[in-house]
Amino acid sequence: MPRYALKVEYNGAPFVGWQRQPNHPSVQGAIEAAIAKIEPGSHTIAAAGRTDAGVHAYAQVAHCDLVRDWSTFRLMEAVNFHLKPLPIAIVGCEKVAEDWHARFSASERRYVFRVLVRRPPVTHERSLVWQVLRPLDLEAMRAGAAHLIGLHDFTTFRSTICQSASPVKTLNAIEIEEIPLSLGSEVRFHLRARSFLHNQVRSVVGTLERVGAGSWTPDKVRDALLERDRAACGPVAPPHGLYLAGVEYDDNPFA
Amino acid sequence: MPRYALKVEYNGAPFVGWQRQPNHPSVQGAIEAAIAKIEPGSHTIAAAGRTDAGVHAYAQVAHCDLVRDWSTFRLMEAVNFHLKPLPIAIVGCEKVAEDWHARFSASERRYVFRVLVRRPPVTHERSLVWQVLRPLDLEAMRAGAAHLIGLHDFTTFRSTICQSASPVKTLNAIEIEEIPLSLGSEVRFHLRARSFLHNQVRSVVGTLERVGAGSWTPDKVRDALLERDRAACGPVAPPHGLYLAGVEYDDNPFA
Repeated sequence: MPRYALKVEYNGAPFVGWQRQPNHPSVQGAIEAAIAKIEPGSHTIAAAGRTDAGVHAYAQVAHCDLVRDWSTFRLMEAVNFHLKPLPIAIVGCEKVAEDWHARFSASERRYVFRVLVRRPPVTHERSLVWQVLRPLDLEAMRAGAAHLIGLHDFTTFRSTICQSASPVKTLNAIEIEEIPLSLGSEVRFHLRARSFLHNQVRSVVGTLERVGAGSWTPDKVRDALLERDRAACGPVAPPHGLYLAGVEYDDNPFA
Repeated sequence: MPRYALKVEYNGAPFVGWQRQPNHPSVQGAIEAAIAKIEPGSHTIAAAGRTDAGVHAYAQVAHCDLVRDWSTFRLMEAVNFHLKPLPIAIVGCEKVAEDWHARFSASERRYVFRVLVRRPPVTHERSLVWQVLRPLDLEAMRAGAAHLIGLHDFTTFRSTICQSASPVKTLNAIEIEEIPLSLGSEVRFHLRARSFLHNQVRSVVGTLERVGAGSWTPDKVRDALLERDRAACGPVAPPHGLYLAGVEYDDNPFA
């Protein structure tokens, strides 16, 4: 059976998350149902990242095994047709080797967290950004973030229900970008790692926001990390600012 | 009674438009109801542009007369509080002279129309842009737009229910901007005029899209204009790509 890699964009607002759950709308379940419309039967797709409820994706990567030898364009068109009207779109499709795996072959995940800094309520992008009311000190947040780069025990920054075998992970980068707007600004956190712990990005961003707001010193981030205690974490940022922005592979089908 | 100018941002999706209508949610009605929470009684606010159902605003301008002498910050905060959870925000507030009028004092309106050019369905900004599937020829659209600049009889480009006394208007500018995206591009039409006819921006953008798609020549726009016949217009672009982006005044309270 030929295997296809799918690059998937979605708005996470109406879903319980990526992972299929009985009787609840999930992104995985919606795509599997759309695929079943074009090749009847039961399908299970595997993805690089299992995003939580409300979390979005610009470029989730999944793979599926199909019977027919599809042209990638036609496959993408057919799945998108059957996904309507849900806010999920297949934005890339490539045929891959039968041992290529969207999750296990991934060498890096990239997440973006969008923060809108302004006082009046958000109107146009309400479920697409996290709003904070006061300006953030970018330099302080960058100093705090520097303590987290590299190989660390991230117990402080992972959910208590995280199922990862080890809390030790390597965080490759945290870049913090500021985009001036006519009203306020948008601050984007770009995080890269081979893999992340459950709630790690939201825990890191929520903690760095406290640094940006001036209620934590940058060094308190290092102290919290060294405590290896979930209780030492800052507030967890809400899901609707978070986007799975890309997945890297040594042999990237979309490169 | 002191008069206040309000700069208003909104997502038009849940509303029947700016104008108050009995038993239907309108932007005007929502703001008047919020003002009634802070100064009891009946309030009528006047706005620079009466946007249609689904049309958004970055910077609509309205004015209201209140009894109390409010600090502009407190007034903005109080109205925003009572507007929750609707996607309407007061983003600017200034005290103005009692003869200043949001509609009649306006010297120019600016509209932006956002077109997302890509093949896969739109997920994140579905009610915020008009999606077209094929690339648009910017130079051809600019050549078509050039025929519309200046003083013309815009009968072709106005709704048959337009209540304006005359179809003769001066279109100050149409600028067409292209923003490359990782998938496709966004094309933004920026239109400026002292005042617009009903559906004029959507009629112009829908017609120029036909030019950009190659099904109309740029010169056909001139021919359609000269026909002064609504039937000669191209398709009317949908409301959800349109934004009232700004209003100019000789004595601009927000300058």
